[in-house]
Amino acid sequence: MKLYRKALLPAGFLANAVSCGIKKSGKADLALIYSQLPAEAACCFTNNTFAAAPVAVSRQHLAGKGAFRAIIANSGNANCFTGRRGIRDAQEMARLAAKGLHTDVNAVLVASTGIIGRALQMAKIRRAIPQLIKGLSADGAAKAAKAILTTDTCSKEATARFRIAGRVVSVCGMAKGAGMIAPDMATMLCFITTDATIRRAALRKALKEAVSASFNCISVDGCMSTNDSVMVLANAASGSMPLDAGRGFAAFSEALSAVCLELAKMIVRDAEGATKFITVEVKGARNPRDAKAAALAIANSALFKTAVYGENPNFGRIVAAIGASGAKAREEDLRIRVSPLHKRDINVEVRLGQGTAGATVYTSDLTPAYIRINAAYN
Amino acid sequence: MKLYRKALLPAGFLANAVSCGIKKSGKADLALIYSQLPAEAACCFTNNTFAAAPVAVSRQHLAGKGAFRAIIANSGNANCFTGRRGIRDAQEMARLAAKGLHTDVNAVLVASTGIIGRALQMAKIRRAIPQLIKGLSADGAAKAAKAILTTDTCSKEATARFRIAGRVVSVCGMAKGAGMIAPDMATMLCFITTDATIRRAALRKALKEAVSASFNCISVDGCMSTNDSVMVLANAASGSMPLDAGRGFAAFSEALSAVCLELAKMIVRDAEGATKFITVEVKGARNPRDAKAAALAIANSALFKTAVYGENPNFGRIVAAIGASGAKAREEDLRIRVSPLHKRDINVEVRLGQGTAGATVYTSDLTPAYIRINAAYN
Repeated sequence: MKLYRKALLPAGFLANAVSCGIKKSGKADLALIYSQLPAEAACCFTNNTFAAAPVAVSRQHLAGKGAFRAIIANSGNANCFTGRRGIRDAQEMARLAAKGLHTDVNAVLVASTGIIGRALQMAKIRRAIPQLIKGLSADGAAKAAKAILTTDTCSKEATARFRIAGRVVSVCGMAKGAGMIAPDMATMLCFITTDATIRRAALRKALKEAVSASFNCISVDGCMSTNDSVMVLANAASGSMPLDAGRGFAAFSEALSAVCLELAKMIVRDAEGATKFITVEVKGARNPRDAKAAALAIANSALFKTAVYGENPNFGRIVAAIGASGAKAREEDLRIRVSPLHKRDINVEVRLGQGTAGATVYTSDLTPAYIRINAAYN
Repeated sequence: MKLYRKALLPAGFLANAVSCGIKKSGKADLALIYSQLPAEAACCFTNNTFAAAPVAVSRQHLAGKGAFRAIIANSGNANCFTGRRGIRDAQEMARLAAKGLHTDVNAVLVASTGIIGRALQMAKIRRAIPQLIKGLSADGAAKAAKAILTTDTCSKEATARFRIAGRVVSVCGMAKGAGMIAPDMATMLCFITTDATIRRAALRKALKEAVSASFNCISVDGCMSTNDSVMVLANAASGSMPLDAGRGFAAFSEALSAVCLELAKMIVRDAEGATKFITVEVKGARNPRDAKAAALAIANSALFKTAVYGENPNFGRIVAAIGASGAKAREEDLRIRVSPLHKRDINVEVRLGQGTAGATVYTSDLTPAYIRINAAYN
């Protein structure tokens, strides 16, 4: 398997993006990913009670049995807490894309990101869709990856390629997210395309595993978003053998997990105001739940994160966070190792000495710049 | 009942504080509160797995049946994560105080606050205790209240007085805490003295109720400390009737709750770097647990707190926090009202429309100054 830090669209996929005018800056804010062949789909969504309208609409489309052809996404407006009108708007986004692509509305997934509680400017989207479709291209991934950004300072792109039974299979991902990042899930969008041949159940299983070890293991500010969506389309254009089980599934799963982890780490590296990339590794936990609870308690501790920002080796804050996590631990068994704090990449290793389970979580420091960014954003 | 913003020691209590040299600044860092009569005691402690040595020692003393005479506390060092030596040091602190006061070691409660993981400088404490005891006075509360502070910018003192059956009863409290503040419990110390006549079981019940609606309803940074302790001594010096039940208990409970709430609010007002005092009131919840979960989710949201700092009415962040809290809610029932953000005191009122339960939580904004304070502190 090879991993590239670029979104290289798999066979049979096209993408494009335009600036429709939702973002005041005039930057691109409407993206489209299109599969020339019918594709299987799998998604992971936010658990937030107030899931946004596009999440509700995409969930509806996924409940059907039909194949999928496209993902349409806008940035600058989350279309969340927008009531019935929000649902109608998300449905119309899907319908307009479907019409232009000569496919069924249920074959289109929808996503939005941006400010909560404001109606989507549908007139702008309506006007832009013909041009969005016209410009679809096999080289369009980078444009689409840019168009889904909000407070991000850079695009997040990754592609994994592996060879199986003489065929090359690609898994290509793009993501956005820089704040409101917390497990279940990071506030983020992630669109993955693959030319693998795989059935829906296996695709779902692979995605669930990949998300659990990547997007659900990062934390910037402990805030769960209303719009989190990870979507994957698999169109079989590689002509690969079915990758539903055995060696084939393992290879596909590895590639999908690698793409998700790479994108998740990019999100943490681009965390709002961050100056540090922190890996928190907990070992020797009684069970996996304890391991993740302890790792996340450290990663979410405002005191620990400010200490790292200040390059202040205050290990008592790590102790306090573990003690508050509920994970089984004893003072005499606990070992904590922290790498030198003057570097950009920090490693925290915690050994609980209670068993053999472990967990790794990625986070950033908490800085005055985070506050400034979020105090001003609206 | 009358409430004063000063620590006015009840009858039969003395207090004092000295600078023993733990704090590099030379400020007072060792405090003693003494009851001239045997007193009942009740305490609430942190739930942190790595509870500090003084918490362990005080818990031990509380397990006995004897009466209590004193609380000794130091600031600048938490005596936490200090192993067996920490326990011995906390025991010695109690023993030295007991010896000087001609009482039993089990009659002394111990508390510490400050940096975690460093051995207590016992030589300094040993040297200072004779002077600490010698200076005990009925006017010493203000000195003691100052000596327990760490990053606090001001003392927290409150006294409630009420008249019952011709006797005046006082409930006097002092607290410290300005960061690492989170429910179960705020990182704080609080020492309460009262001349009420009340049995231990009733005293415990009243304290539990008071703490639940005060110190467990404030949140500065969501970090649970290792040293949180609320201690109350009741010495019956008022000559009041027993306040164990009925009207007597109600009056005492009201006074104790008022003192705790006043001190809890003072802690939030003095939160590290805070520029705002935020009251989050949730109404119409399905049950009290939902109400508190929703209120705390808002109060602990870094995004909400930075929005308030920026005077940026981004109500979507309140929606996202409620949605992530697990409290039952529906978009069409939810009502949110936020008072003008340019003022120092901000009120957030949330109506969930699911039932009749409510909760009120107090918090502060999250500011660049919070980061600076915690990046440097060690």
